[in-house]
Parts: sequence; C-alpha cells; structure tokens
Amino acid sequence: MKRSIEVCLTPSLLELFDFTTKIVVVVDIFRATTTIITALAQGAEKIRAVATVGEALQWRQQGYLAAGERGGQKVEGFDLGNSPYDCIDRDIRRQKIAITTTNGTLAIQATRGAKAQAIGAFLNISSLVSYLRSVENDILVLCAGWKGQINLEDTMFAGALIAELANDALADSDSARIASELYQKRHTDMLAFLKNSEHARRLIRIGYERDLEFCLRKDAYSVNGIIKDGVIESLQYPGR
Amino acid sequence: MKRSIEVCLTPSLLELFDFTTKIVVVVDIFRATTTIITALAQGAEKIRAVATVGEALQWRQQGYLAAGERGGQKVEGFDLGNSPYDCIDRDIRRQKIAITTTNGTLAIQATRGAKAQAIGAFLNISSLVSYLRSVENDILVLCAGWKGQINLEDTMFAGALIAELANDALADSDSARIASELYQKRHTDMLAFLKNSEHARRLIRIGYERDLEFCLRKDAYSVNGIIKDGVIESLQYPGR
Repeated sequence: MKRSIEVCLTPSLLELFDFTTKIVVVVDIFRATTTIITALAQGAEKIRAVATVGEALQWRQQGYLAAGERGGQKVEGFDLGNSPYDCIDRDIRRQKIAITTTNGTLAIQATRGAKAQAIGAFLNISSLVSYLRSVENDILVLCAGWKGQINLEDTMFAGALIAELANDALADSDSARIASELYQKRHTDMLAFLKNSEHARRLIRIGYERDLEFCLRKDAYSVNGIIKDGVIESLQYPGR
Repeated sequence: MKRSIEVCLTPSLLELFDFTTKIVVVVDIFRATTTIITALAQGAEKIRAVATVGEALQWRQQGYLAAGERGGQKVEGFDLGNSPYDCIDRDIRRQKIAITTTNGTLAIQATRGAKAQAIGAFLNISSLVSYLRSVENDILVLCAGWKGQINLEDTMFAGALIAELANDALADSDSARIASELYQKRHTDMLAFLKNSEHARRLIRIGYERDLEFCLRKDAYSVNGIIKDGVIESLQYPGR
C-alpha cells in the first residue's frame, strides 16, 4: 500500500492527528521556515526553535545569534529578525541561531513527538521531496497558520508538496484535497494571489513586501532542515 | 463599508471567532442541515437540535418524532434517521422533531450565543441568500465538519454562499478564500468531486449513496430554517 500524506491546516487541529509514527513537515512560508532554510543554506551551523524571547536571549549569552519577531518586527536586542534577507545581508556562516516567532517555532515544538521532523519551504521543496522519498513513513504536513487560524500560503505549500509526491504518497483526506485543489487552481499566479493573503497584507503594511517574492521562490537552495531534539541542522542532497 | 462574510471551517476553530454580533449560518451538507431543511419544507412544525439520544427520546415522550443518527445509521427506537428521504417517505406535516447527529446538531448548539442562527443547505440556498440580505449583520458560516475535522462538502457550501453574496458581503479572510477557490474550481462537477469526500465514501459504504445527489440539489425548496432558543422554525420567502 502507498504511504499516505495528510495535512493539518493549523496547529489548533493538531490533537486530531496521530503523528507519533509519522514524518512531520512543518510549514510557515511567511516567514519562519523560509528564513530557517535560508539560514542553513547561508551556512548556519544549527538553529534552535524556542518559544519565548527570554529563551532566545539566554541562548544568546551562550554564543547564539538571537533571531525572530513579534508583530512581524525584529525583537529589540536581537541580532536578526524573521526576514530571510537578514540571513543574507549578514555573514552567518558557522553561527548558531536561536529563533522565536509567532507561529512557526510553536509548530515545531508542538510536534516534537513525531518520528522525524523536517522544515518545509518553497526554497527547498525538491530537496525536501528527495528527503521524504528516502524515508518510508507516512507524512503529516503541519501548516503553522496565524495565531491558530488557517492561512493561504501554508495551505498552498501543502498542496504543492502533495503534487510533487503524487506518485509516492496518497493524499485522500478532505484537508489534503482542499490544499491540492487550491494549489492546482493558483500555482500559476501564486505571488499575485498570495499578496492578498491576510499575513501578506500585514507584512506589506510593515515594509516587508520584498520578502514575499523571496518566500515563494522554488528550489533556490538544495539544503534540508532536519530537526533532532528541537535542534535544526542541515542535510545536503548533493545528488540533485 | 460592506458587511463581511467569514468562514469557520470546523467547530474545533470556533473559539477563534467572535460571533455574538453575527448571523451564524450552520452547515452540515451530508446530511443534518439538508435533512432539517427537507423536514421544514415537508411541513414539520418545529425542530429541536439536541445533543444526545437520551434527550431526543425525552422529547419523544412529549409527542416529538425522534430523529438522527449515530455512525450514520438511524438510532434504534427513533422514528427517523438522518436521511432527507426519511422526511419525504413518511408524512411529517405538523409534526415536531427532535434531532441529534454527530456533527450538525452540535454546531447549532455551539453557536447559540449568536445574534441569529440560520440553517444552510444547497436545497434552499437562494432563500437563505434572501434572508441574509434582509438582515444587516456580518455573517459567519460555521461548517460542521466531521468529528472536529474540516470536510470538503461544507467548505464547498461556504464557497457557494460567498459566491451568491459576492455583491453584498466582503469575503477577504484566508479561510473564506480557501472556500471560494474550492467552489470556483469544482462547482461544475460538484457531485462527482464530492462523492470522493471522506464522509461521502462512508455514506456510500453504509448504503446512502442516493442521499448524496439529493444533498447537492440547489433550490429544491424555498423555505428557511431560523433558530430561536435552540428551536428551528421555518420562514417562507414567497417572493422568490
């Protein structure tokens, strides 16, 4: 029997899913998981997803860069915000990073009991697919959403991943179909469509419009972000 | 400013929405709200949505017909199941009905604090639109889903209602857009598409395939189901 790929459209629904035997792909396209993949691709050594500003600052005292946002803006006293460009404009090679964001880092923490956890982003979707093909477990895509709500961009990514894995994994739950239909309908004008999502409008209002296009670039990087005991490290797929 | 129409894709997410000033449209296409509209159209006097089998049987002792399902099947000792055909095959004129179902009746109870509550179904969508145009409040469509999960058919109906109200109400949340996109993509082959939904497959397995086509008929009836203090009564729109 084909393995399955299932979608949890927001962490608010996570208790309805049994993920202990599954690989969980955590998705927060605007912007946490995009920024994490960018950081790994730019040479960061490891990334810790932490829940609070205080925790990030504690890791900072041990040599980590503190990264993340509250209300979309870089936290005061932090080294980096939650924009992928923050990891490009500054040399972060061999740095350790502690990141805290409104949705993405919480979704990572909520699924620590999974068989494995991987970071999902358009930036590395083909590498992610290679990784997912290299393991056998069923897959749960966890969309980080926005403060408990479902969002368009993470749902769209879930649909994209289902499309990429169409020959490998069965996506026949209603949630998976909703994500698939959305992606099929809108993948040709994704940027224009997602600029009107609730969170994109928020990001545009506070000056991060250029991030949106970056967050939707497919396969800019060939790195993977695999999470072990809450620490995200990179896994290269040189075969691609 | 245009009034808004917002969508809650499952009762599991209801706490994220403030509906106290809104009209809530409760939707359980397969099959509770379809059956309720059918019962009203067939002349039922009033319908009580109750949570438990015991409550329905208590109302039965006071002259109500007991209706509803557990596991999709009619409850033992009940007069009617949760199939709309049960309200057609038997004369229910001037009868009172107490109905309990897995998802729909719970969604009705969960939104008792709303400004007003209406029953949503394809069977009466134009009448529902007329009713919604006759009142001014913002609208929340509550999809009953399946045991907390999001489902395709209720999401599809939310998209249909948004399309009908396109000139009257603004649907710019991400959840509303997901429903709209799904409806736009699939409204031309709705029955074929929804036959593959999780709940449709369940209903087909237990012998209710003919219900599916009935549940998707648009405007078979011109009645409305308006809920007051937990009691659903009909409101005719003779103007149509």
